[in-house]
Amino acid sequence: MNLETLSVSKEGAVLTVEIAAPPMNLLGPELVRDLVSLIKEAEPDEAVKVIVFKSADPDYFIPHVDVTRIKEYRQEAAKLVGEASLALLFRHLSASRLITIAQIEGRVRAAGSEFVLACDMRFAALESAIFGQFEPAFGQLPGGGAAQHLTRLMGRGRALEVMLCAQDYSAELAERYGWINRALPTAILGDFVRSLAHRIAGFPATGHTAVKNRVNAIALAPVEDFRRDSDTFGEAIRGSQAQGRIRDAMSHGFQTREGEMTLARMLGDLDGPSTRF
Amino acid sequence: MNLETLSVSKEGAVLTVEIAAPPMNLLGPELVRDLVSLIKEAEPDEAVKVIVFKSADPDYFIPHVDVTRIKEYRQEAAKLVGEASLALLFRHLSASRLITIAQIEGRVRAAGSEFVLACDMRFAALESAIFGQFEPAFGQLPGGGAAQHLTRLMGRGRALEVMLCAQDYSAELAERYGWINRALPTAILGDFVRSLAHRIAGFPATGHTAVKNRVNAIALAPVEDFRRDSDTFGEAIRGSQAQGRIRDAMSHGFQTREGEMTLARMLGDLDGPSTRF
Amino acid sequence: MNLETLSVSKEGAVLTVEIAAPPMNLLGPELVRDLVSLIKEAEPDEAVKVIVFKSADPDYFIPHVDVTRIKEYRQEAAKLVGEASLALLFRHLSASRLITIAQIEGRVRAAGSEFVLACDMRFAALESAIFGQFEPAFGQLPGGGAAQHLTRLMGRGRALEVMLCAQDYSAELAERYGWINRALPTAILGDFVRSLAHRIAGFPATGHTAVKNRVNAIALAPVEDFRRDSDTFGEAIRGSQAQGRIRDAMSHGFQTREGEMTLARMLGDLDGPSTRF
Repeated sequence: MNLETLSVSKEGAVLTVEIAAPPMNLLGPELVRDLVSLIKEAEPDEAVKVIVFKSADPDYFIPHVDVTRIKEYRQEAAKLVGEASLALLFRHLSASRLITIAQIEGRVRAAGSEFVLACDMRFAALESAIFGQFEPAFGQLPGGGAAQHLTRLMGRGRALEVMLCAQDYSAELAERYGWINRALPTAILGDFVRSLAHRIAGFPATGHTAVKNRVNAIALAPVEDFRRDSDTFGEAIRGSQAQGRIRDAMSHGFQTREGEMTLARMLGDLDGPSTRF
Repeated sequence: MNLETLSVSKEGAVLTVEIAAPPMNLLGPELVRDLVSLIKEAEPDEAVKVIVFKSADPDYFIPHVDVTRIKEYRQEAAKLVGEASLALLFRHLSASRLITIAQIEGRVRAAGSEFVLACDMRFAALESAIFGQFEPAFGQLPGGGAAQHLTRLMGRGRALEVMLCAQDYSAELAERYGWINRALPTAILGDFVRSLAHRIAGFPATGHTAVKNRVNAIALAPVEDFRRDSDTFGEAIRGSQAQGRIRDAMSHGFQTREGEMTLARMLGDLDGPSTRF
Repeated sequence: MNLETLSVSKEGAVLTVEIAAPPMNLLGPELVRDLVSLIKEAEPDEAVKVIVFKSADPDYFIPHVDVTRIKEYRQEAAKLVGEASLALLFRHLSASRLITIAQIEGRVRAAGSEFVLACDMRFAALESAIFGQFEPAFGQLPGGGAAQHLTRLMGRGRALEVMLCAQDYSAELAERYGWINRALPTAILGDFVRSLAHRIAGFPATGHTAVKNRVNAIALAPVEDFRRDSDTFGEAIRGSQAQGRIRDAMSHGFQTREGEMTLARMLGDLDGPSTRF
């Protein structure tokens, strides 16, 4: 595979995919294009059973989409799913016969969180992983499936909290809320995920498919619901309110490595210190 | 607002509502009437985005309904929702555009628990909050939505346990079971909730509405289910079995401040020490 | 009751049922026959309200079905539910008016886990209880309801993990994932369950029925879904892939007390050390 933003290694039936899209792994057209290529190649290849996703950047797994290139990355998604929607690309991954595991260090916010939610399992570094759905700080519904997944994983009260307050959540709290499978010390995370991936890959594919089909029938929302969230996001993000807030955030460091180290605080201060408590 | 049992203060777009219905914050006609007035006034007022509910009584948030005045408080609820049902009043609150946060100290049992379950988020004092659904001790299904919410929040096994055993649950266990968002030390609870409320209120209302609509579409039971639970409760509570057990409980301190400090134990002893293990 | 594999004692309205099917409590025709007899006798007897299930074997609660006698035990199940399906027998128990509590010490894997999932509540010994759904190690979907229950109890990500990796889970982790109500120290487990059972039994049966009906309407999957899982399992287990892996496992100690003490490790090694990481 000739990929610009993903570096892929294969060991047995396990692909390990490292996301490397400097400076901060924003989800833009290049990364989406490469994800599409990866899925298109791996899905029909029966020698591949499990994919582990991790990041080459210790501070950022995927921080969110590139808000300046929404139309472009959506068109890349369409090349796999036939519709210009990241949500449908993510749902495709959830419904795939491939077993996907996210090994999370650094920040996964907004569509980054939605990407790991689309994976079949999520394990995160206790010391460094940070989770957030900050779209409501821009007056937006998360468009890539967070509402679908988080509500089912953590229930109404916690899902409302997470999506309304646009705060950062530690790996420990993310585990307690059900956002991820488990938070593990960084020192053992890699070995744990590698061992799990190879263990699963050692079992027959018929079991994988049967289990995924049955679990998805119960817990994966229908395509229409992902499409509706995606459309709602796509329309609102073009509005003057969202664009105004994004410009304001940009002027405070949004979409920069430095500025997003403490993004949750910055978003809380957008309207000035009068709203800070 | 001219309210007898609620004291309301406004700071920015956040209303803080303190429940003060001595001697123990029973949910009777006065408190329901005031809740209806509050909602009627706040809902169309775009200057209000978030409501925080707390209690003026450190031992009781809301212990349960006044079982001697069921018909009266139901009629107050009808003034907002058109039907004499507390469950439908609570569901109205869940479906409202207003963001509601319960800051819980003291006892929330039966309809008190159902009130906080109807709020969008629940944070409770580690040291003092106590949770219970004791209706089955009177042979009753909880009528205000507990079955709908608890089953979805904590799953079949824990919901059955909680509703069948009529026990008291600490804030720590309530958090572990998903009954509440989080249990926090009393010393920081107030600041945490105030900060959260103002943070959310600082974000655009369009995001609030989009998130609540989507989460409710997934996790808030339909009106019919609340109505059915409400009707089941309303019919059974008038029966001779329930009335007999209520009279018995009354003679042991039910609906008194003192008697309900250890209500769970008292309910377990209603049929005499032979059933105590 | 004249039962070979269950020893039953009655105290008030609580039956305590100890599973004793040496050498390791495999779920075979005798145990299923006795479960059917127990349910047939207890269900119409209004003097019985609660059943506690525990094991006479400290290492094994129920390890799984006897894979050499599937047709036979299914025929025993049919004597209660009219169809040769363990899943439908388990679902019958979940839908029963009887309140069932599993007090778990030792191993509950595969159909053993599914049996306790069918109970209304599950409490497990912190020190000794071990949980697993290892069917996918044989290329199989769990056929007795695990997919239905686990997906609803722990959400998509954790349910996929548990069912795809065929690992052992401690009581502590099982509690964290929502597989069980609570993990408790062995020293207090028995008293806790006994007290809970008698407390519930002391409350009116009308409340039990109302609560179970309402919770089941929300959280217990329909008969068709259990039947489909059961059929999927029944067909695949006869296939050459499953039979080959079962023979292989048998040669490594599967279905023996000794061999299953560390079953999860053995299943990971079935295809040789090359797949071990």
